[in-house]
Amino acid sequence: MVLLSGGLDSATALAIAREEGFECYALSVDYGQRHVAELGAAARLARAAGVIEHRVMRVDLAGIGGSALTDPTIAVPEAPSSGIPVTYVPARNTIMLALALAWAEVLGSRDIYLGVNVLDSSGYPDCRPEFIAAFQRLATLATKAGVEGAACRLHAPLIKWSKADIIRTGTRLGVEYAQTVSCYQADDEGRACGRCDACRLRRAGFEAAQLPDPTRYQSL
Amino acid sequence: MVLLSGGLDSATALAIAREEGFECYALSVDYGQRHVAELGAAARLARAAGVIEHRVMRVDLAGIGGSALTDPTIAVPEAPSSGIPVTYVPARNTIMLALALAWAEVLGSRDIYLGVNVLDSSGYPDCRPEFIAAFQRLATLATKAGVEGAACRLHAPLIKWSKADIIRTGTRLGVEYAQTVSCYQADDEGRACGRCDACRLRRAGFEAAQLPDPTRYQSL
Repeated sequence: MVLLSGGLDSATALAIAREEGFECYALSVDYGQRHVAELGAAARLARAAGVIEHRVMRVDLAGIGGSALTDPTIAVPEAPSSGIPVTYVPARNTIMLALALAWAEVLGSRDIYLGVNVLDSSGYPDCRPEFIAAFQRLATLATKAGVEGAACRLHAPLIKWSKADIIRTGTRLGVEYAQTVSCYQADDEGRACGRCDACRLRRAGFEAAQLPDPTRYQSL
Repeated sequence: MVLLSGGLDSATALAIAREEGFECYALSVDYGQRHVAELGAAARLARAAGVIEHRVMRVDLAGIGGSALTDPTIAVPEAPSSGIPVTYVPARNTIMLALALAWAEVLGSRDIYLGVNVLDSSGYPDCRPEFIAAFQRLATLATKAGVEGAACRLHAPLIKWSKADIIRTGTRLGVEYAQTVSCYQADDEGRACGRCDACRLRRAGFEAAQLPDPTRYQSL
């Protein structure tokens, strides 16, 4: 089970899961995100990877707002900020992992991969190793599978990698990064703004990896 | 923030939160449950309690199935069984708490009440004190509020009570149990089957509390 947002990191996590020998299911979550183009990217990446099934689950987080990614009246910042940025979506990774846990348990899948990364990231609390460890413990206690000694294992292979490491590994594994959408305000075609936090981290990653940036930008 | 299913336990948890001085928001989750009549009950209970807002969030767990409550081809058992019953819904309470955590963080609510109960319950893993403790730890690590020292506190006041204790307390607090729906296969009017696990636990609770059972049964 791979949580596949359609971004660079989760596309790489999917490639790693496949390289480690798994036949994969992919789960994406349509939560009312501003950059809904990432869901089209997820579908293309899932198809290219030959997943067994790609499921999109819907949860209306736009209805509660509280983030620049779910409330159109909050602007996406285009300059670096300190602290946890307004693009933080309350409890998003907790919700996504809970949905993945549910589907994994129904399928009998024992492994959940996700592309969270703490190093070249925006400082979201739910991308840290201690969050993953706490969810691992929860998953073991929350489920019938866990009670029966067959709890799902979380895999966050990228969590302490630099963006350049992620891009180098994914490139080696054949990830088509041109197909991924990282930008928080990507247009309907998936073209990136080049200015938001996600775009800056991504561009710096390609530069540090000394690899050409295949991102399609809106103004180019 | 009160997780309000429309059943007896969560109605009591709402009454306790109010008695403890909280103005409440109520969250119900439409997950494709067989006993969808409980959502009508939740709306009536929320209105009667004068909550600030009652929100129903939808998550399609029927699409993944794996439980008698979400897959119509799996029958609801009408005799006691051993172990975790087929009415267990994979990761349901994890999902519901994750959604409550998200909405609570957006609202700035610091307290989440839920009516889980481990004693007179069906043996679900996600109703145990150790599950609640693990989610509390997760909530603290997962959120911006937690990082800033303002994590949501979980309150599960009923967790170690008998069903009779719950009913006595709720009766004292004015809960209209006739309005609640516990039955796993309640009809569209919310009338109970009288035979499923939830009905048996509920009926035994009223008997043990020596209070009249106001439940509307289908066959009576």
